[in-house]
This record gives sequence, C-alpha cells and structure tokens, in this order.
Amino acid sequence: MRIALAQLNPTIGALEQNLRKVKAYYQKGLEKKADLIVFTELALPGYPPRDLLNYKGFIDKERALITDELIPLTAQSGVPILIGANHRRDNRLYNAALFLESGKIKSIHLKTLLPYFDVFDETRYYNSSTDGQIEMIGDLPVAITVCEDIWNDIAYFSEPLYDTNPLEKLFAQDPRLLINLSASPYHYGKHALREDMLAFLAQKHNTGIIYLNQVGANDELIFDGSSLVFNNRGELLYRAPADKEELFIVETANLFKPAVQIVPPDVDDIGTIKQVLELGTKDYLSKTGFKKAVLGLSGGIDSAVVAALAAEALGPENVLGIIMPSPYSSRHSREDALELVKNLGIKSRTIRIDEPFKTFINLLNNGKGPVMDLAEENLQARLRGLILMQISNREGHLALVTGNKSELAVGYSTLYGDMAGGLAIISDVRKMMVYELAQHINALYGKTIIPERVIEKAPSAELRPDQKDEDSLPPYKQLDPILELYLEKNYSPSEIIAEGHDEKTVRGVIKMVDTAEYKRRQAAVGLRISPYSFGAGRRAPVARGFEHY
Amino acid sequence: MRIALAQLNPTIGALEQNLRKVKAYYQKGLEKKADLIVFTELALPGYPPRDLLNYKGFIDKERALITDELIPLTAQSGVPILIGANHRRDNRLYNAALFLESGKIKSIHLKTLLPYFDVFDETRYYNSSTDGQIEMIGDLPVAITVCEDIWNDIAYFSEPLYDTNPLEKLFAQDPRLLINLSASPYHYGKHALREDMLAFLAQKHNTGIIYLNQVGANDELIFDGSSLVFNNRGELLYRAPADKEELFIVETANLFKPAVQIVPPDVDDIGTIKQVLELGTKDYLSKTGFKKAVLGLSGGIDSAVVAALAAEALGPENVLGIIMPSPYSSRHSREDALELVKNLGIKSRTIRIDEPFKTFINLLNNGKGPVMDLAEENLQARLRGLILMQISNREGHLALVTGNKSELAVGYSTLYGDMAGGLAIISDVRKMMVYELAQHINALYGKTIIPERVIEKAPSAELRPDQKDEDSLPPYKQLDPILELYLEKNYSPSEIIAEGHDEKTVRGVIKMVDTAEYKRRQAAVGLRISPYSFGAGRRAPVARGFEHY
Repeated sequence: MRIALAQLNPTIGALEQNLRKVKAYYQKGLEKKADLIVFTELALPGYPPRDLLNYKGFIDKERALITDELIPLTAQSGVPILIGANHRRDNRLYNAALFLESGKIKSIHLKTLLPYFDVFDETRYYNSSTDGQIEMIGDLPVAITVCEDIWNDIAYFSEPLYDTNPLEKLFAQDPRLLINLSASPYHYGKHALREDMLAFLAQKHNTGIIYLNQVGANDELIFDGSSLVFNNRGELLYRAPADKEELFIVETANLFKPAVQIVPPDVDDIGTIKQVLELGTKDYLSKTGFKKAVLGLSGGIDSAVVAALAAEALGPENVLGIIMPSPYSSRHSREDALELVKNLGIKSRTIRIDEPFKTFINLLNNGKGPVMDLAEENLQARLRGLILMQISNREGHLALVTGNKSELAVGYSTLYGDMAGGLAIISDVRKMMVYELAQHINALYGKTIIPERVIEKAPSAELRPDQKDEDSLPPYKQLDPILELYLEKNYSPSEIIAEGHDEKTVRGVIKMVDTAEYKRRQAAVGLRISPYSFGAGRRAPVARGFEHY
Repeated sequence: MRIALAQLNPTIGALEQNLRKVKAYYQKGLEKKADLIVFTELALPGYPPRDLLNYKGFIDKERALITDELIPLTAQSGVPILIGANHRRDNRLYNAALFLESGKIKSIHLKTLLPYFDVFDETRYYNSSTDGQIEMIGDLPVAITVCEDIWNDIAYFSEPLYDTNPLEKLFAQDPRLLINLSASPYHYGKHALREDMLAFLAQKHNTGIIYLNQVGANDELIFDGSSLVFNNRGELLYRAPADKEELFIVETANLFKPAVQIVPPDVDDIGTIKQVLELGTKDYLSKTGFKKAVLGLSGGIDSAVVAALAAEALGPENVLGIIMPSPYSSRHSREDALELVKNLGIKSRTIRIDEPFKTFINLLNNGKGPVMDLAEENLQARLRGLILMQISNREGHLALVTGNKSELAVGYSTLYGDMAGGLAIISDVRKMMVYELAQHINALYGKTIIPERVIEKAPSAELRPDQKDEDSLPPYKQLDPILELYLEKNYSPSEIIAEGHDEKTVRGVIKMVDTAEYKRRQAAVGLRISPYSFGAGRRAPVARGFEHY
C-alpha cells in the first residue's frame, strides 16, 4: 500500500483557503498513485483554533465543507482520506481523525488525551473519549491517533501527565501500523525527544509508525513539520523538512523490513532556531496580510540579528531599518547600523529624535533642560516607537520588536517604546543565544553580515551618556542561567541559590522578573523557540505579593 | 454552634501578608465566641494564584505557614479552623479545604470539579478527587465543598458542564449543613443565579447552606463577596457586603427553623457595577503599590466616567486629569473637561499637544504640513499617551486607560495612544452602559457631576475637524447588541443577521472585531464586569482567516 502524507501549513480559521490546499494535495496524492492520503490534526481549522471553537457556526461550516467537498472526492477516485477534524457527538465536541472512504465517513477516531499545559488549552474546548478502535486499511490493521494520544507511555515517561494511556487499548488489538496526526509546535530539545520516543514505541509494539506534523507558524507557535516514518524496528526511514509543505509517500511494505538506509538523528542546533524564527516571521506577516517590515536599528546586536532574520525571511527589499540617533547615541552605533544595512542590502532611513526630544523637554520640564531621570530615558524610547508606528501605519509595514528574552524577563525595556510593534522575533531568545545567532549568521553566509564591533562591544541602551546594561543588570552570562532555572524549571529562589548562584543577584533578578509582569502583559506576540516562553503558556498575576520563598 | 465566617480580601502570592490577615480574623472570631472559624478558597495564596502554583517552593511555603502558624492556634484555643488551601498527595496537587482541629489536620476535602472555561484554568494546575466525605463538626454532619463542586446539579442546570455531581455522594451521607468555600468573581447577572441556585439546593436537600466568597479584586477579576446563609427551607438569612471584608456569625440553630426575617433578593444593577468597578480600581492600585492615578480628560463621556469612578475609589486628591488639546479639539471639550474637574474636585493640568504635533509633522512629512491621514490621527493619540506615561513614570501615578468595551471590540482606538496605561477601568463596559453609569453617578450624588453636555453630545475622537464616531461605526445603539450576540453568546454572523440585524452592518462589525485582535493582545488589564470580557478568558488567534460563516 502507498500512503501519501500531506505536511501542510494552514491558516487558523481560513476553512475555505485550507480546503483548497487540502484538495490540491489530494490531487497530488492521486497523481502519485497513493492508496490513502493523510492530513494533519484539525487540517481545515488549522491548529490551534482556540476560541473559534466556541462558535457552533464555525464547527458546522467545517463539517459542511468535509461533507460537500471532501467526501465526494473519495467516491469519485476510490482513494480514501484520513484527516484531522472537529467532531460533535451528543452535543459535545471532540478532536478527531475522520477516515473518509467511498463517499462516506467510514470511521471516527476521537482524541483521548487533551493537553492543557503550557500553550495548550484543549480541555477548554474538547471532551475526551476512550473509544479507541483499530481500522483496517487495505489488509493492514492501523491504530489511528491524534497528537497527544501517543505521549503517555508509562514505560517511557517516569512521570506521565495523564492517568490513562490510550495506546494500551489500541495495541491490545494488534495493529501493524500507527498513524499519528499531529500539530506539535517547536521548542528546542523537542526534536530529539520526539524521535527517541517514537523509535521506542515502534520497537516496543513491533509496529510501523507514521508521524505527520503540521508545518508553519500561527501567531507565536512555530509548527516545525519534520514528519517522521519509522519501521517496526524503530529505525527512522524518513524525515520531512522543518520549514515547508511537502507531500511524501510511504510504501507500507518498507515498514516491516530492515531499513535500506537509516536517516541520521536530527541536528537541532542554532541553525534550526534561525530557520524556525525565519519561518515564524514569514508566516506571521503573510497570514496578517503584510509584505514589508520596519524596525529600529540601534547599532546593537539585538536589532542587528532581527534585521538579518527579517531580511532572510522577507527578502532584504522588504525590510526597512530606521536609524534614530539621539543626543546620547554614540557615533559607532550609527556607523555599525549603516554597515549592517549595507551588508544586508536592506533599506534604511535616518530620523534624528533630537527635535521631538527637545520639544517634549520644553513642554514637560517647565522650560528647564533635561533632568536625566528614568522618565526621560523612557521618553527617548517612546519617541522612537512613535516614529516606527507612524511609518508602520502610513506605509503599511509591520513594526518588528527587537527585544530579547533576557530583557523582557527583567523588564529592561520601555512599554510603548522599544516594546512597540506587531511581532517580536527574538523575544524568546535569551541574550547569550542572540550572540550565538549573530555568530552563526556570519559563519553561515561566509562573510561579515553583523559587524564584529556589534558583537564585541558591551551592550548599551544609549539612553544616557556612557550607559551600559551592566549598570542595571548582572552580566548576561550570570543572568541567563538564573532566568532559565526560574522560568523553565520553576525553581524557587532558594533552590536557585542552592545551585551556587549569588543570593543577592538571584533575589534581585527574581524581583525584577516578578514586577515586570505588567510590561509583558502588553507585549507584542513573540515567536516561541524555548520550552517556556512569555506567551500563551504563561498565566501570571500582575498585582501580587513579592515575598521570597 | 456559632460559626464565624471570614470574607477576606487576599493579595495573590502574598502568603505572609494574607496569613497575618487570617490570624487577625481568627482572633476576632475567638472574641465573638465562635466554635469554628472559616476562611475562603485558597485563603493564603489568594485566588487565582495561576502560575505561582507551578512553583513547588510556593506550595511548600504555604503549607509550612499552615503547619507552623495556624495549626498551633487550634490547639491553644480549642477552636477549629476550616480553610481553603493547596494540598499535595502522591506528587499531585489538589485544591482543598483543610479542617484544622486540636493541633492537627483532622480532615482534608479535595475539590472534584475543576473549572477550565472562561477565566478559569484549574485543570492546568490541579487534579480532581472524588473522595467526598462528611465531617462531624460538633454534633452536626457537614458537607465541606470548594467553589465549583456545588455548581453541577443536573436538576437545576439543563446542560451541566461536568459528568459528575460531587454533591450526590456527599448528600447520600445525610449532612445537615453544606459549607462552600469560594472565590467567585463578579459579572452582572451572577448574583441572581447564585442566590436562586443555592436556595434550590437548600430546599432539595433540606439542608442549611453557608456560602463564603472571597472579596476584593485581583487584576481584572473582582471578587464581590456577598457571602450567603440559607436555612433548610431555602430562605436567605444573611448576605455579606459586596465590597468589603467582614467577619459574620452564623448560629447553626437558626438554619433549621423558619427565618425571622428573609433577606430580600439582591439588587444587581448599574449601582452594583459602579461599586465593583471602584473596588477593582482601588485594589489594583493598592496591590500594585500605587496611590495616585493619572488620566487624559478629553471632554468626552468615557474619560468623564473613568475620572468619576477613580475619584470615588481613590479620593479626588489622588486623581490627576490631563487635558491635552490639539488643533482639532473643540472649545466645548475643554470647557466640559474643566467643569468635570471642578465638579469632582480632582487635580488637573492642561498640556497642549500642538507643539510636539508640529515637530513630528515637520520631521515625518518632509517639511510639508499635515496630510490628515489615519497615521496622523494615531500620532495625536500617541503624543497624548506619551505625555501621560511621562507623568506616570516621573510622578509615580498609575495611568488609567479610558476606552470602553465597544471601542475595544471594534478596534476604534490607538495602540500606545489612548490604549496606553496600566489599568482600563471601563474596558468591559459597553458604550450604552457608560451612559447609564454617567446618569447613575449624577443621580446618586444628587447633582451634576458629569456635565449634561458631555452626556448629550455626539461621541467624537476629535482627531480631525468635525469627526464623529458614527462616521466610522454604526450608532452604539445598533453596535452594542451585535457585539453582545457575537462575543457573549457566540452567535455566528449569519445567526446574528437572522435576529434581524442589518447584514452589511453585522459583517462590517464582525470584520472589525476579528481584525482588532492584535490591538487587544497589547491592551492593559481591564476590570471585568460582564459574562465575557477581553481578558484572561479570551484565547483568540491574531493571524487568522476572516471568512464568514
């Protein structure tokens, strides 16, 4: 049997547009003589549809498109479809896989495990089912599952999240093949886990596994494709690309014999991070209807890396860098920004903020000059934000936010200033990783894209004379590991100190993180690459006590 | 038996501060000769603690405070405590009620139903238990429950949310009293439902009911106290205040005889909305460490109502109104703003934005004058936002956002402009209800607080000559009902049209709502008063298709 797998990039809520894509790939599957054509979890709504699922009219329309447009195809061609879709039964909603054959819905496979942690909220929308039945496809008994249902093997996970493992019931029925329809977003480290866990399952159950994942970004979540095929020895036969759509074919006979060639383990490194950030940037703009982006170029490393990623994602001709010197800007910053513009081939303008700064100082300081307080530092950042937004609004460019995760964590940024914009490309990239990205970019292109001085000089916001980040923050080499323990591993302050970090530094950093929640509440959508980002998965109070524990 | 009930206002995460409050009220209960003193759901962490629950150190500290500070009190005085608290068992976390007696934890009552809809996310943090056991307190068998567990009676609710009703198991054990520890946030309409449902339960089970609710606001959620006592005939014996802490006593003997005086049904009207908005404002400021607030006064009704609410909540001396006329501001707007300032007795300053506007036009329009595009309208709003933030940052005033829910829904507002600020007081109040609030405020104080002209004139943003809201939006009388059907009732566009609304208007409004998600993503925390607000309960995609259905 030849199975065609469609790793597609849907747009959330664009049912008709996604349907056109599904139909086009179904046609491609037919051309490739497939006996079955498979699509990802919630292929027509796109994943995650979130509150769109509260609209019965939305669910009804999805089902009408399946009934009117997809099911008839299976009667005409004789080739069945397996597709992720919403399913309503007894007035309850399920996340399901529908097996469409010969002009009807032959079987329905409901999801059991509903993720509700991190960025996932499926218990808000869905009910859980434990129906689990094997489907005969051709002469092959197949276990059809949706995403999370394969992720609770108690022999693999020492602390399984759920009380039940739906695979137990399915494998008691002796399937030879497991197909999993997924929409699993990227974070670093996940690739290796996925491949290791799936190889384990294939070996344990002596079964072939086809893992089909959504590709493309929806808001902050970057679905990284990388669909996988394992034979029943747990050998990896195929891995689809991480950053684009693809239809690939699996000959099922190959799943039950030794691999001719085993695909080497995935390399999930700084290059992958660059790749998914570019995918996330490209998709956010295209799915919100933008072609061009504008950003402020300070001459520092954050805006340099953002500009480089945007130039690669959108084409340099679609990126506009605005250089906005103030009285406190250094000459080298301007030189470095201009060199970056030249290296990348992007467009640029220079708009000095001296005049509006002076006007505001006159207006707000009772005719006296600058008093050099924090409010005036914020003022400069906000004047720049205002200029970017003016260009964004007038010229139809999306404004990119250039702040990194370390800054966002401790609130070393200005609301409505450098935080202004529609998309934050590196807001989940900690500062030390921004340096890695810069070095990777220069190495990858084999020439200096990001000027050496930008990488080497001490980070500075340049909002007052001779200002350095280290005046206000611990060195990033110390800061980043503390942030990781506090945010990703949920260590308490005392546990972090017990790891050997300086007490005063730790308590200071955590106070900054906790009190900056009000800024993050108003932050732009930020692309996610880490296991814990400041996005949909964070549910943190703003008004709160700050006692230590 | 005399039971003392403490309706308290905790601060999220302030374990020690909340403990001091609990101990003080325990002391008050002893003074009143209580035989049992009861506290609300998660009394030490405060509700909702959200991601603080991910920190084992936080849970451990809460338990240590209970063990070291509360349990010993019950040994010293002989008076037990019933308190909502986190409980860890077999490495899983539960939302629980602890019954502390004679120096130990005598019994633990775990929550069964974990709300995961709207603003609630309990399945993210908690496990569900079906242990349900009656506790003998004195000679009274008592069913002890936490919040949601009383909300799934299938005889009362035609579509119960959960598959189980924990009360069934409890009432099979013949309790004579039901105590419910709650933290239930206000929205209009909820009071009547609560009182009706509890009366139904009391009658059905022939049991007394004590419903103890948290009071005070935590971020957007306003917990409205209004704790209730019913006798076993379902007669309401007592209702605590909606806006302040209180310790009240229940003589259990009174629960089993006819009421001497039945408390009349709750009046949940525009006056209640005013009261909870003021509570929300007061608490947000005090819990984030602010005393004073600053806001822009446009001369329009939204900022007038916000100023009036803030003056009442914080004291007029703590409210600073900034009047920021532009070349397009009308004279009557300035007059009206000044009259409002006088009527309220708040402070004010006038800062014209003509000069910075001119500076930016010179800078951005290549020396030409204004071109009167949308970007220049946004520019004016952002210059005002910048001035407010400068005052906020420099003088330590919290900036209040003055936008209403109708505007926020359709995106008739400027990001970083009129949307700038820390707290949006009326962002869940639709425009027609803003008028009601204005009229109520004038009626309540028996004099004109909000000038009549402010209430009567046509709404205008005054960002270009002779601009009216109705140039861009349907009249609010048409707009508000469409928004309610779309947002609160999840009607699809075609269902709204079927209700008799004009098709073109409906489709236009819904397009505006859907495309404005990016603005709301960066909106300030906004106090919630409706069954559906644009806050923690909304999980809507930004990048999405906008097909109609």
